[in-house]
Amino acid sequence: MKYSFKITGWGKYLPPTIETAEQLSVKINKSSDWIMSRAGVSERRVSDIDVDQMAAIAAKEAIGDKDKPDLIINASGVPKQTIPDTSVFIQKELGYEGIPSFSVHSTCLSFITAINVAASFIENKSYCKILIVSSDRGTRGRNFNEPESAALLGDASAAVYLEPSDNSSGLIDFEMSSWPKGANLTEVRGGGTNLHPQDDATKDEDNLFSMNGPEVFKYSLPKVYQMILSILKRNQLSQQDVDLLIPHQASGKGVKAYWKFGGFDKTKVMDIVNETGNCVAASLPLALVMAFEQKKINNDDIVLLVGTGAGLSIASAIIKL
Amino acid sequence: MKYSFKITGWGKYLPPTIETAEQLSVKINKSSDWIMSRAGVSERRVSDIDVDQMAAIAAKEAIGDKDKPDLIINASGVPKQTIPDTSVFIQKELGYEGIPSFSVHSTCLSFITAINVAASFIENKSYCKILIVSSDRGTRGRNFNEPESAALLGDASAAVYLEPSDNSSGLIDFEMSSWPKGANLTEVRGGGTNLHPQDDATKDEDNLFSMNGPEVFKYSLPKVYQMILSILKRNQLSQQDVDLLIPHQASGKGVKAYWKFGGFDKTKVMDIVNETGNCVAASLPLALVMAFEQKKINNDDIVLLVGTGAGLSIASAIIKL
Repeated sequence: MKYSFKITGWGKYLPPTIETAEQLSVKINKSSDWIMSRAGVSERRVSDIDVDQMAAIAAKEAIGDKDKPDLIINASGVPKQTIPDTSVFIQKELGYEGIPSFSVHSTCLSFITAINVAASFIENKSYCKILIVSSDRGTRGRNFNEPESAALLGDASAAVYLEPSDNSSGLIDFEMSSWPKGANLTEVRGGGTNLHPQDDATKDEDNLFSMNGPEVFKYSLPKVYQMILSILKRNQLSQQDVDLLIPHQASGKGVKAYWKFGGFDKTKVMDIVNETGNCVAASLPLALVMAFEQKKINNDDIVLLVGTGAGLSIASAIIKL
Repeated sequence: MKYSFKITGWGKYLPPTIETAEQLSVKINKSSDWIMSRAGVSERRVSDIDVDQMAAIAAKEAIGDKDKPDLIINASGVPKQTIPDTSVFIQKELGYEGIPSFSVHSTCLSFITAINVAASFIENKSYCKILIVSSDRGTRGRNFNEPESAALLGDASAAVYLEPSDNSSGLIDFEMSSWPKGANLTEVRGGGTNLHPQDDATKDEDNLFSMNGPEVFKYSLPKVYQMILSILKRNQLSQQDVDLLIPHQASGKGVKAYWKFGGFDKTKVMDIVNETGNCVAASLPLALVMAFEQKKINNDDIVLLVGTGAGLSIASAIIKL
């Protein structure tokens, strides 16, 4: 075991408002069939509360009647605002004060990255009750003039509560790599110093999500496949030893690739993208939480978290529950 | 020693263009004397290259002829753009590919937080050559209608390279706390899901830096003082045992407070704010790098990194060099 820890709590927030492919079709001037064939998303949630409030609902469920956490990590794809850090607003919504908090950011892979950071802290006994929350309102950044990416995004939040354990559960292994050649394949070009909101040169679409889906798929597929083979092999595991593969819900096609090309049984790949869309960084922990809720995973199971994110970055984590 | 590591490389980038208090005075309609009395900044640098290029210059200096890092952590206050993560653009500028990278964000305290994350990884032998880079263009977010905060900000980047060591150097202790009651005292309200750049309700000033300096000072002073006393005491150290205190360069008044009220000798407080301004998250590592360059710190010295950031968050780290 690389780092011992136990996921002792989990929670999610799916906003009540559903937007169907049919409702979206009018906004992006494409048919429902087109949306289903390109994005594979038949409905997504649209939040009317902001990311910090969404995060707090999921976090409260994860905390339950346990102690307040001694560290809060925000692992979302997009912040509430540039400054202060979103983790502070989440803490505020939770009614706490004085708890150390910060964000770990690697766009859609933020949750996997944060698990690695948190597990390292727990192994070192620096913190022993860590809350990780991912909360994203992808629908806020949709560009309706780019129908393929606009058809993907949805809103959600998800949270987990981590505590120390004996050596029987935790992070077996973690791997990540970033490939800047793919940096321009998935972008929100605005919002920072590059194309600052008040610059004349900044266009409306610079502040919206843009993705070359087919290129991302082509570029990342062999890299993800190689990473999965390598992380399994060096831990003397095969695809069959993985009880559930929980991928980032990038798109219908992206999730399917794990069983079509990845050597995993279709029933062992957690697939929620059809009902939730791509919820940016919240997608992966949302799928994890829903797997817990639906009792698809249990104590001692081996789960493989894996995904691609803007960057282009890929990451995977093998966890024994 | 909490976590063993050694800072084996450091580098900085100070943009060549200097803006003096006199030059700024015209833009904010205040005199140079007013600027000096309120901000304590007689000049700051203004960059015409973006944060990723600035970061790469500092990083190359820190890496020198050592191996390429096996992890890159961006620890800046404001990103280059919303997506992908800034760490990817830094890696691109460095000419690398495949290196895992992500951001650790806690606004002006991002560097201290990242040191804690990196040191934990090195202790666990997860990574053994970690590059941490902070790069900020605070001048991009100045609101000239808010002269007091506009007079503070400057541009810079700074980087360190961390490697494993025996138990003789590393992080002795770390502490952080976040206080959401102060969340609105220092803000850039735009740039995220709260006041999205394309929202009609988002005003120009929402995308610019805003700070209630006097309130931040009043609110944070007792908290920082208590944290310093507590972290020193529990490590059986006194102010006199600290060879150099390296604070976030929040403002002239903010830096002076450490020797006026904090019990430290004036000569033991690293003070660069007069010539660089508040360079957001880059301020603290810039002060650290300049202390190395000026030979104010040496092997076996004890340095105390400490600061306040938007949030309001406070953090401190005792490092044995």
